[in-house]
Amino acid sequence: MQSLKRVELLTIGEELLLGLTANRHLTTIGASLARRGLVLARSCVLPDDRNVIADAFLKAWTRSDVVLVTGGLGPTTDDLTRPAIFGALGLEEIHDPQIEQAIRNRFQRMGREMPDNNLQQALRPREATVLPNANGTAPGLLLERDGKLLFLLPGPPGELHPMFEGQVLPLMELRGILGEEQAYLQIRTVGIGESAVQALLSPVFADYPGLGVAYCAHHGQVDCRLSSPDGAYGPDELQRVADRCRDLLGDDFLTFGEDCLVKIVCDLLRTGEYELAVAESCTGGLLSNCFTNVPGASKFFAGGVVCYSNNAKVLMLDVPECMLKQHGAVSAETAVAMATGVAERLGADFGLSITGFAGPCGGTKENPVGTIYLGLHSPRGIWCRKLNYPGSRMLVKERAVNAALDWLRRELLRPDETPGTDEQTRFEAKRLLDLKF
Amino acid sequence: MQSLKRVELLTIGEELLLGLTANRHLTTIGASLARRGLVLARSCVLPDDRNVIADAFLKAWTRSDVVLVTGGLGPTTDDLTRPAIFGALGLEEIHDPQIEQAIRNRFQRMGREMPDNNLQQALRPREATVLPNANGTAPGLLLERDGKLLFLLPGPPGELHPMFEGQVLPLMELRGILGEEQAYLQIRTVGIGESAVQALLSPVFADYPGLGVAYCAHHGQVDCRLSSPDGAYGPDELQRVADRCRDLLGDDFLTFGEDCLVKIVCDLLRTGEYELAVAESCTGGLLSNCFTNVPGASKFFAGGVVCYSNNAKVLMLDVPECMLKQHGAVSAETAVAMATGVAERLGADFGLSITGFAGPCGGTKENPVGTIYLGLHSPRGIWCRKLNYPGSRMLVKERAVNAALDWLRRELLRPDETPGTDEQTRFEAKRLLDLKF
Repeated sequence: MQSLKRVELLTIGEELLLGLTANRHLTTIGASLARRGLVLARSCVLPDDRNVIADAFLKAWTRSDVVLVTGGLGPTTDDLTRPAIFGALGLEEIHDPQIEQAIRNRFQRMGREMPDNNLQQALRPREATVLPNANGTAPGLLLERDGKLLFLLPGPPGELHPMFEGQVLPLMELRGILGEEQAYLQIRTVGIGESAVQALLSPVFADYPGLGVAYCAHHGQVDCRLSSPDGAYGPDELQRVADRCRDLLGDDFLTFGEDCLVKIVCDLLRTGEYELAVAESCTGGLLSNCFTNVPGASKFFAGGVVCYSNNAKVLMLDVPECMLKQHGAVSAETAVAMATGVAERLGADFGLSITGFAGPCGGTKENPVGTIYLGLHSPRGIWCRKLNYPGSRMLVKERAVNAALDWLRRELLRPDETPGTDEQTRFEAKRLLDLKF
Repeated sequence: MQSLKRVELLTIGEELLLGLTANRHLTTIGASLARRGLVLARSCVLPDDRNVIADAFLKAWTRSDVVLVTGGLGPTTDDLTRPAIFGALGLEEIHDPQIEQAIRNRFQRMGREMPDNNLQQALRPREATVLPNANGTAPGLLLERDGKLLFLLPGPPGELHPMFEGQVLPLMELRGILGEEQAYLQIRTVGIGESAVQALLSPVFADYPGLGVAYCAHHGQVDCRLSSPDGAYGPDELQRVADRCRDLLGDDFLTFGEDCLVKIVCDLLRTGEYELAVAESCTGGLLSNCFTNVPGASKFFAGGVVCYSNNAKVLMLDVPECMLKQHGAVSAETAVAMATGVAERLGADFGLSITGFAGPCGGTKENPVGTIYLGLHSPRGIWCRKLNYPGSRMLVKERAVNAALDWLRRELLRPDETPGTDEQTRFEAKRLLDLKF
């Protein structure tokens, strides 16, 4: 096994230190490297200050094999990454006509005039390799010295991430820096708490002394990462441990790796050749948006309705006005009427609905803020579920969407002959249809 | 005016370097300090390694007035922050019976047995002040030396954030470290590029030597932050500079401060007592979701339709089938039919629609991936706009939504007597209605 290289990330941008934007670079780059066996040694956020950047860069350059620098490559006066670092390395910049042409082409394609200050983005050290930027004006730059690699990358995530995946990783691979295996094996669970996961899986881990186990809870999901810090267990052995965990977890096991819940649900819909339609009130399009983030969603996603008002529920989903009057928009009856309504309107196999009070206002004594009703219309029946989540409006929306996705996932996994798990809240399709039409 | 203190943030935790969780501490702490006049000087994420922590801490301690350390205070073997830092400072730890009692009480309240390893959280240097933790077992610690402050704070956001706001900020205030005013004044612009903003505003800034100016581009918006690093300009003077910028920017000026585009659009809709309905194809609910993230959206947001299939466009929005056949789902005609269809179906004043190819598949020679048509149905007319965005599916979706929001914003701002800015793409309402109905 090769010795692992030391990689550091320097992110330049006062907006990060001011808390104005989250450091998404660390999450994407960190995760991407970990999938190839490397754990970032350190990540620092620095202000747009030439001396600070130069000093921090030289320290990182001395102790590391690869230094990734992001941000501060723009055309404005506070973009100091290039002068700071090239100054520190004693490199002179030359004008690169190819970079200039690429920038001019970009402006032309957008039908906009190129301001003169963009021209300074066409400067680069003679020794540097240019990494073309298909999504912005600042190209990336690669500098190699004494077997070390320095990457200068643009700050906007939409420019950085494709460049990192499409150019930086392949270049690191060519230099033999990336490993073959993930730095860890991840078991993703859903619908079970962190301590319950730990209680369930600990007896398995007791059989493997020195196994690295870490837990991470996020949005109704708990990830469990297995690793072998001292190299005692190879990938096959880690996988055998993970398989034992999967068997114990049953339906609470979501996947190995990083696929998200909606991706798994989409795969199940595609495999079953089902069509889905969704109706949302308080989640306001978040559920629809999840599905349509998955490329090729038109194969199984018929569409959705955001029925934010009672009027919209009646007009778009045929929810009876009398039902809204009698039971309210936030009720089991309305949830199932929405699910059935959208499925029938769009001729889909499955209808999934969410209605509730996301807060901060609204709510009743019986259904306080945080109350969510989910409706599920499937070829096998129509059900509803009542949930309650604490937390902010955004958090309630996210949790409601995750709960809806997980419910659909379990329904899609359920063998035909097994009864639904929700018999107590089951609405007989016939009874409901009588009520509605 | 007092001289500003230097504050650094050290965050300990391998899960951040593995990209498994975003560094929310940086955004909350950074923003919180900036609101009180302090800009974080640097923020580093470090692995759970005693030597690395000790080394990075000593460097930060030497150059700063305040060092904030978060994470690694837990009871497990990989929690090394305390030994690393107290070792580096040559401090001995004593057992604090009050901390122990607080931890025991917490476990008792939860009806759980306290594992022995929690007892090490009751250790602290004799010189340290204890910051009680109402939300977890690890207390915070404050150490003062030579007028410098060191805060050790627990890692979980639910424990850290209340402790930071409720205890750390007041303690810093007592020591006279916090300022009275924001550290900067932010001008938010939309629909104009970063270099164009700079070209437009630079002549203003030339009148104020020593003015701090920083730019940040994100999703079709450009922020320009004004500050006075040497204290030469007070808040009133910064505001006068900002007012001049606003006047130059015209409709490209969005707001002062941090309000987002959708918030501004919602305020305009609320003020005009208008109702809005939206119809989305390729953005799949993202536009609807933006509006419904704003509390009280039901006052002006009638609802939305995610018409991902042609079928959904016909059934939910009355887009004529012959139009879809003749012009295609991604066309000016379909965009305006969607906007009008959803506005009429839901009886809203404004209808906003998005159709296009978000990629990675789809697209035609005339309308390649990244092509977006926006439709706007307003009480004054019906228009369409064609745009093209490079980039990933997510990026195209985000940019399309931002362009739609900005267009609606400009339409809502436009005085009644001014003609629309899009005469060349204007569809006469009558002609369109002839075509449709």
